[in-house]
Amino acid sequence: MTEQRLTRQLQFVRELDRLKGVLRRTSLIDRSRRENSAEHSWHLATMALALGEYAPAGTDLARAIELLLVHDVVEIDADDTFAFDVAGNADKAARETAAADRLFGLLPEDLGRQFRARWNEFEAGTTKEARFANALDRFQALVQNDAAGDGGTWFAHGVTRDAVLRRMAPIETGAPGLWPAVLDAIARAAAAGHLRDETVPATSG
Amino acid sequence: MTEQRLTRQLQFVRELDRLKGVLRRTSLIDRSRRENSAEHSWHLATMALALGEYAPAGTDLARAIELLLVHDVVEIDADDTFAFDVAGNADKAARETAAADRLFGLLPEDLGRQFRARWNEFEAGTTKEARFANALDRFQALVQNDAAGDGGTWFAHGVTRDAVLRRMAPIETGAPGLWPAVLDAIARAAAAGHLRDETVPATSG
Repeated sequence: MTEQRLTRQLQFVRELDRLKGVLRRTSLIDRSRRENSAEHSWHLATMALALGEYAPAGTDLARAIELLLVHDVVEIDADDTFAFDVAGNADKAARETAAADRLFGLLPEDLGRQFRARWNEFEAGTTKEARFANALDRFQALVQNDAAGDGGTWFAHGVTRDAVLRRMAPIETGAPGLWPAVLDAIARAAAAGHLRDETVPATSG
Repeated sequence: MTEQRLTRQLQFVRELDRLKGVLRRTSLIDRSRRENSAEHSWHLATMALALGEYAPAGTDLARAIELLLVHDVVEIDADDTFAFDVAGNADKAARETAAADRLFGLLPEDLGRQFRARWNEFEAGTTKEARFANALDRFQALVQNDAAGDGGTWFAHGVTRDAVLRRMAPIETGAPGLWPAVLDAIARAAAAGHLRDETVPATSG
């Protein structure tokens, strides 16, 4: 019985290894390659330790870290969906729900329920912890694109300033203390011509 | 003042990105490439969630996870040292201490002290949390090598069964419930000829 329980846990542990092969659209800061979702999740969880003071008062950081560790696991089956990909985001929820069923279903039932609850909490975004976790997820992409010095994936994909502002909006409530830094980075990218400006007419003169 | 504090925190967050470029000797289970220390750290922290019941009674899992998130950060400067590399391990402590000084020194002093304390705790290995974290670190290498099906880096580097047993020994106290699975995996690798056996004389007959 116990042995069968451990067998299921180890199957899940081996399956987790595959998240290291799921590539995001963002690159490492040195632009040497695209970032994968496993190392991205580590970066976010460690950022929660370094930036915890910017979470709203009363946020349980340990739970926020658990949400961050689990939030991308479904991508093992569902793959990463680029934040600015409209078509890909249309069926994202269905793909991810099926992935959650299979992946968390590998675990013994009680543990599977715990992992599923963390993922649901992150996705629902209604608790302080989920909002802070989501804010860090978005903030990290901004830090990567800002630090790259060339506009990173924003520039490469012709993303507009307004789209980035909408994408970053959850930081204003999820990690209010980081919001001024977000506006600074967006202003810097816009001034450098790394973000398209929708307010400029397509034809002029 | 607050702005300067955030500037230092963001410098540390950007520096963390470099751990994604530090390669370990272990490979991903599909053997497609070597594992990096950032994705490895995520795997360990998530394993702590899935295998927490095998920690000794009274282990604070949230703190164990913090230790796992931080335990390899010094490798950004000091690089990964292969567990079975005798020469590399001789000056490992000095290289890692210098790395800790610089890297945790990027943070505001209070935060730098907290990160340093977590790393020191992991290295000292005297608390339940540090022992459990260390056990998972070793156990994950065993899972990767076992699942690879070809002896992984143990076979590639001609590691002996006794050396692996010594390397895995901390699991017996750090995560006692996993010890039988360790012995099983080692027996399997030895039977398959993936581990050298020191007890066989070099010349015979």
